[in-house]
Amino acid sequence: MALIVQKYGGTSVGNTERIKNVATRVAKYRAQGDQVVVVVSAMSGVTDNLIKLAKEIMPLPSEREMDMLLATGEQTTTALTAIALHALNVDAVSLTGAQAGIVTDGVHTKAKIQNITPKQVHDLLDSGKVVIVAGFQGQTPDGQITTLGRGGSDLTAIALAAALKADLCQIYTDVDGVYTADPRIVKTARKLPEIAYDEMLELASLGAKVMQSRSVEFAKKFGVIFEVRSSLNDNPGTIVKEETRSMEDVVIRGVSLDKNQAKVTLVGVPDRPGVAALTFKALADAAINVDMIVQNVSHGTGTPSTDISFTVDKPDLLKATRVIEALKPEIGLREVTADENIGKLSVVGVGMRSHSGVAAKVFETLAQNNVNIDMISTSEIKISVVIDLKRGEDAMRAVHAAFIG
Amino acid sequence: MALIVQKYGGTSVGNTERIKNVATRVAKYRAQGDQVVVVVSAMSGVTDNLIKLAKEIMPLPSEREMDMLLATGEQTTTALTAIALHALNVDAVSLTGAQAGIVTDGVHTKAKIQNITPKQVHDLLDSGKVVIVAGFQGQTPDGQITTLGRGGSDLTAIALAAALKADLCQIYTDVDGVYTADPRIVKTARKLPEIAYDEMLELASLGAKVMQSRSVEFAKKFGVIFEVRSSLNDNPGTIVKEETRSMEDVVIRGVSLDKNQAKVTLVGVPDRPGVAALTFKALADAAINVDMIVQNVSHGTGTPSTDISFTVDKPDLLKATRVIEALKPEIGLREVTADENIGKLSVVGVGMRSHSGVAAKVFETLAQNNVNIDMISTSEIKISVVIDLKRGEDAMRAVHAAFIG
Repeated sequence: MALIVQKYGGTSVGNTERIKNVATRVAKYRAQGDQVVVVVSAMSGVTDNLIKLAKEIMPLPSEREMDMLLATGEQTTTALTAIALHALNVDAVSLTGAQAGIVTDGVHTKAKIQNITPKQVHDLLDSGKVVIVAGFQGQTPDGQITTLGRGGSDLTAIALAAALKADLCQIYTDVDGVYTADPRIVKTARKLPEIAYDEMLELASLGAKVMQSRSVEFAKKFGVIFEVRSSLNDNPGTIVKEETRSMEDVVIRGVSLDKNQAKVTLVGVPDRPGVAALTFKALADAAINVDMIVQNVSHGTGTPSTDISFTVDKPDLLKATRVIEALKPEIGLREVTADENIGKLSVVGVGMRSHSGVAAKVFETLAQNNVNIDMISTSEIKISVVIDLKRGEDAMRAVHAAFIG
Repeated sequence: MALIVQKYGGTSVGNTERIKNVATRVAKYRAQGDQVVVVVSAMSGVTDNLIKLAKEIMPLPSEREMDMLLATGEQTTTALTAIALHALNVDAVSLTGAQAGIVTDGVHTKAKIQNITPKQVHDLLDSGKVVIVAGFQGQTPDGQITTLGRGGSDLTAIALAAALKADLCQIYTDVDGVYTADPRIVKTARKLPEIAYDEMLELASLGAKVMQSRSVEFAKKFGVIFEVRSSLNDNPGTIVKEETRSMEDVVIRGVSLDKNQAKVTLVGVPDRPGVAALTFKALADAAINVDMIVQNVSHGTGTPSTDISFTVDKPDLLKATRVIEALKPEIGLREVTADENIGKLSVVGVGMRSHSGVAAKVFETLAQNNVNIDMISTSEIKISVVIDLKRGEDAMRAVHAAFIG
């Protein structure tokens, strides 16, 4: 008998038929004798509709009231899920985040979980009930309803699993697990049986949209092992856990391609202190999120000058070039160029730490395939290169073939 | 400066435009310096839609889970109403029933309010905020969400007014107040400036669908004076309060006609003890609500026999006659007749207590208009007669003209 926390997202509970399917799955675990805590999101579309109503009244509604409003979405799903379990003769009870003992700080719409008092949930489990908890929400110590922001239901599930010392935490979604590459692009991509937290974090930040980084960070911090799996079938998913020695045997866990970035280059920047600070302060002030930054060594005689390149999300490109254009007189740079037609190819794996020559092999593979490299950036467990968008998918397949197969 | 509790029903908050109208009205009171507590229902249609979802999953869903589900409807309205007040630069905050300190027993879907801890609401009012409270809901001492059943939002408003010692409690609805008769039938009907609790209770039970009896009973018990008025205009409404001496100067407060009853007559019932008990026990066991009961004195020679007539809601008529037919052998009655074409005409007024001859005047008026009386039933402040449905509206106009004008 295990204590299992299962989380189902908005599409998995998108209508009453799907809620019944969730109940059937939960009932199967319960029939095996497992104790089950089910964390649910709002039915898909519900949250957007509530936001629309609020914005009909006021463009920028109070965050405290938005929490009050949006928290109803998950509460609705909990009740319907409990009813669906009753229909299968499974004893079940729904709880709001507050009732489940989830205490947060008071930062409305993006509250942080401060602690969880799991007594109520434990008591209900011990009395033989399945406990359905509203994801994405909690309450402050003085009883205000809060929500946890994007990916909040995953966070609820992982935090509850930690507080309850659950044996298993399953994140049900509409994909089968984490793959070595996007299977729609790389036909030979394989589902990973397991992946280290740090690898998952790099993939999350690289646009493999399985989970928000902060849920993975929370799991890592509290050592919660979780499984990402599909609510549409019974296939085993991908276990996300602390890095083990055997994981290092695999050099590369996955290859990803982010097509949503654009590149800005500052050409002929005078090589003097403070220029980079000025540039990126101005971008930060404009709330533009900068990803990769590359600066080459200075060259030329006379006043030495250099080039600085950085990448931003495509929708921010126009804003970013405007910010830089405005800085032109102050910095004295020669030219600003922008390029939307780039792809960021990344290879991720904790095995890189103990295997030398990974970067060389990436570059060599790209060269053999006549793919030119624009920018390079590396971390301990990741190598990213910016390349021509047109060659992105070819390059991805080639690198995947070279390392994984 | 007064402390005012205002309650707005489902149609008054039926969409975001109407919620803005509610906010405008609340803001006007606030601008006068009043402290305002606003109790809101779910937006019209929302509750029905939630019930539909639940019934898609299971025909008879758990009452505990229905409370969890339905409570989201009012919570949604509170947040939207608070946002609408913010849009008018009025400081406002929403509270669930639980947050407002409304503690109930554990009878889900028809919980009774046990007590209200109004400290939180008082503190928020004292800090200058308008407080928006979700109607229809509360929580048990151990934190389960409950709902109060039909008319629950009125009850929330009246109970809060009592607990807060409010100066005024306004029930906003889609009618202008309580009338001496239905103005669609009686053109000379007048809006009553005031009415006694007991008169309001009689009218409520007679089908004048302004409010549920139990909210009026609660107001009477705790001496909460409230006003029924329209959310569509600024007309003063009807004040409902304890009977005063001057109220007795008016003989008749109102005339009502209930077209939704049907009559069953047991003809030739042997006049022996236990027959009535047997009959009405059988009807109660079949969950049929019996309204008027009339038994004439026995007549005839040999075995004395009598007739018993009673009225039921029209939808229950078939069931009622079947129950009686089944009793026929046991009771030994001669015949059962049923009549759907009846109307129950009632006149209500505390003034009856001190004015003699009211019943006589009613009967006389009906006789002058050639309206035959089938059944008569009286209470201390009410006279009801069952008459031919076809003559119902004429009779109503005649009696209204005789007593009121």
